[in-house]
Amino acid sequence: MSPHDAVEVIIAKRGGGALSDSQIDWVVDAYTRGEVADEQMSSLAMAILLNGMSRAEIARWTNAMIASGERMDFSSLSRPTADKHSTGGVGDKITLPLAPLVAACGVAVPQLSGRGLGHTGGTLDKLESIPGWRASLSNAEMLAQLEAVGAVICAAGDGLAPADKKLYALRDVTGTVEAIPLIASSIMSKKIAEGTGSLVLDVKVGTGAFMKSEADARELARTMVDLGTDAGVRTVALLTDMSTPLGLTAGNAIEVAESVEVLAGGGPADVVELTLALAREMLTAAGVTDIDPADALASGKAMDAWNAMIRAQGGDPTAALPVARESQVVTAPSSGVLTRLDAMAVGLAAWRLGAGRARKEDPVQAGAGVVWHARPGDTVTAGQPLFTLLTDEPARFDRALGSLVGGYDISPAGTVHSASPLIIDRIS
Amino acid sequence: MSPHDAVEVIIAKRGGGALSDSQIDWVVDAYTRGEVADEQMSSLAMAILLNGMSRAEIARWTNAMIASGERMDFSSLSRPTADKHSTGGVGDKITLPLAPLVAACGVAVPQLSGRGLGHTGGTLDKLESIPGWRASLSNAEMLAQLEAVGAVICAAGDGLAPADKKLYALRDVTGTVEAIPLIASSIMSKKIAEGTGSLVLDVKVGTGAFMKSEADARELARTMVDLGTDAGVRTVALLTDMSTPLGLTAGNAIEVAESVEVLAGGGPADVVELTLALAREMLTAAGVTDIDPADALASGKAMDAWNAMIRAQGGDPTAALPVARESQVVTAPSSGVLTRLDAMAVGLAAWRLGAGRARKEDPVQAGAGVVWHARPGDTVTAGQPLFTLLTDEPARFDRALGSLVGGYDISPAGTVHSASPLIIDRIS
Repeated sequence: MSPHDAVEVIIAKRGGGALSDSQIDWVVDAYTRGEVADEQMSSLAMAILLNGMSRAEIARWTNAMIASGERMDFSSLSRPTADKHSTGGVGDKITLPLAPLVAACGVAVPQLSGRGLGHTGGTLDKLESIPGWRASLSNAEMLAQLEAVGAVICAAGDGLAPADKKLYALRDVTGTVEAIPLIASSIMSKKIAEGTGSLVLDVKVGTGAFMKSEADARELARTMVDLGTDAGVRTVALLTDMSTPLGLTAGNAIEVAESVEVLAGGGPADVVELTLALAREMLTAAGVTDIDPADALASGKAMDAWNAMIRAQGGDPTAALPVARESQVVTAPSSGVLTRLDAMAVGLAAWRLGAGRARKEDPVQAGAGVVWHARPGDTVTAGQPLFTLLTDEPARFDRALGSLVGGYDISPAGTVHSASPLIIDRIS
Repeated sequence: MSPHDAVEVIIAKRGGGALSDSQIDWVVDAYTRGEVADEQMSSLAMAILLNGMSRAEIARWTNAMIASGERMDFSSLSRPTADKHSTGGVGDKITLPLAPLVAACGVAVPQLSGRGLGHTGGTLDKLESIPGWRASLSNAEMLAQLEAVGAVICAAGDGLAPADKKLYALRDVTGTVEAIPLIASSIMSKKIAEGTGSLVLDVKVGTGAFMKSEADARELARTMVDLGTDAGVRTVALLTDMSTPLGLTAGNAIEVAESVEVLAGGGPADVVELTLALAREMLTAAGVTDIDPADALASGKAMDAWNAMIRAQGGDPTAALPVARESQVVTAPSSGVLTRLDAMAVGLAAWRLGAGRARKEDPVQAGAGVVWHARPGDTVTAGQPLFTLLTDEPARFDRALGSLVGGYDISPAGTVHSASPLIIDRIS
């Protein structure tokens, strides 16, 4: 006989009380086995969203999700491991230059990534625009690549936290994505089960992020750092701005190209700044304090690691990237200073052009996306190109243009633009 | 294309906002059609439970549930109609004497009832202990019986508010039964669709009721009276005590027998008091103000209406009622005054003896239940029978006895027991 039943657990959380360890272990396990139904778990998720969870409850919930599947082990590797997780943003290609850069500095990066859903892009979708590259590796292939190349970016296998996989899909359709305890336990259960020794979290805040307010982002960062630390993973979080999109591109192939520019020593200043900041945190967390990642960029070692990483997964780093069949330029309606470029507007435009997907089973277009030709603080002249929209299907232009309306401000020439900092805080 | 999607509606209510008319109409209809999934509706139900609904939202939700099915029409009847609904209690057999009593006074009573679930009994379960009686009638049979006999107690057909039927079953397994907006709209959608001209609500409060606090019961009563009034049904509510069970019996056949005693001019004082109070409210709401229902009890007209009503549905009112195969007497452990008899304890005992069901598909035992031989205020002597437990399965005695432990107080002889009023308030 079951030690608990679903209605009892739901009513306990509905009333604002804390769930017991036994209730949490049971409900996560019973849900994974199908004994607790989707309609019961979604009701519980809404009660968690509205009534919250204590630190102890979140830790137990995370452990129960880890216990639902296998745990990986990288302790046989000859070097320390560090991973990075971003809560998701627009133009956020940082994982692409970051993983080979950190590998080039002697720390192994076992990066399990996901596909995009909604307005934020997915790292695997971006890499899949590289001809031949494949996202699925066995655990043995992953370990071998980590030893040989030092970096791997691949899809999480089905064996890792299956409870999370099932719960995430449910939350997506039941309006319960934005529960901080559930976001934190979802991310951290996979990262802890993955077996990384250290972890750097990039918690985004702003219009283009899941967390719109700094208070929510701080709470999420704090919760995740505590979860990692309690589980023996050296964990630190950077709180970074996502009111403006990162770099100059949002899409798939065009973000790969921008990442390669960074690895070649160029690229947009903000992408370089964030990549180096996260690399330094990962190296420090992994105990490597005598190497400056800027040197690995300058020396070409990071680019070498990128090429090796792409080749190890079947990709051709020298192949031409896919190009969208159609493009349309949006010009500046007036002259002045670009004082705002909204991440959500750009993200929605890229998504509507075909760079993202509406449903999990939809394909994405490799060449689709948005390129912007100015960043906040830049002077623009009426009639100059402000955006280039890219898609294989011209019918998509109208809705993409619609999402850019009101998505930027051009102030009179001479307006002083005070940029907000990219890195807002560090939480450890 | 759909005007809304489930996640949008859930997020609106999650944030504490009011749902628009269009959102409510869509979500109720789409749920009934299966376009909105159970796991989405349960998440929304939890958000409604925790964040509430405005009067306008509840009215719209109720209308949407009515619109999901057929509406009945009794306007062709030669007399006015009045119905009664109780929110459920222990020993609450009032519908049985009430419907024929009101019919005997010239007002037609179209009573659609339900079966019991949990510790509260179901009117249909009680009547089905009468040999031959059947609960299912077609709409045409119901109308003919109302014209000929003036009273009908039958099962609600599948055509009436199917959205409510589906939602009620979902709420039962997802910890979302106790949402006042959903309780009110569930009850009132069926009563309004049923087409009664006036309605008297018996809202129970106390340990044996769904509403444990008077504040919750008042809110539910107020909400339902407003809903009925807004829909053109003359509606009034009595707030009545359910901390003590009604009458001297809780079960099925034994409650029919007690009801017949009332119709014969006897029966427990509290059952008579509540039956007459509700009858007066129903008659007044239906515009009949010159008849005292006490006269119809005394004259035997109410008993005549009962006999006609039972016969019209195939039952034999003169047949012997089923008797449980086993009985066990619980004696008073001390002498003194019975100062408390807990409705929930008695209800659970009756349920565990087999008078009620744990799952919708379970049968009930016609003869099972609890008889109590003293009511609060009565003097008892150590060793006298206090309860008689009835069941067909003696294995059930132990758990039933367990639920009576702590369920009553006997105070020293001479203690003055100040009875709390049975009818707490009237809300119109």
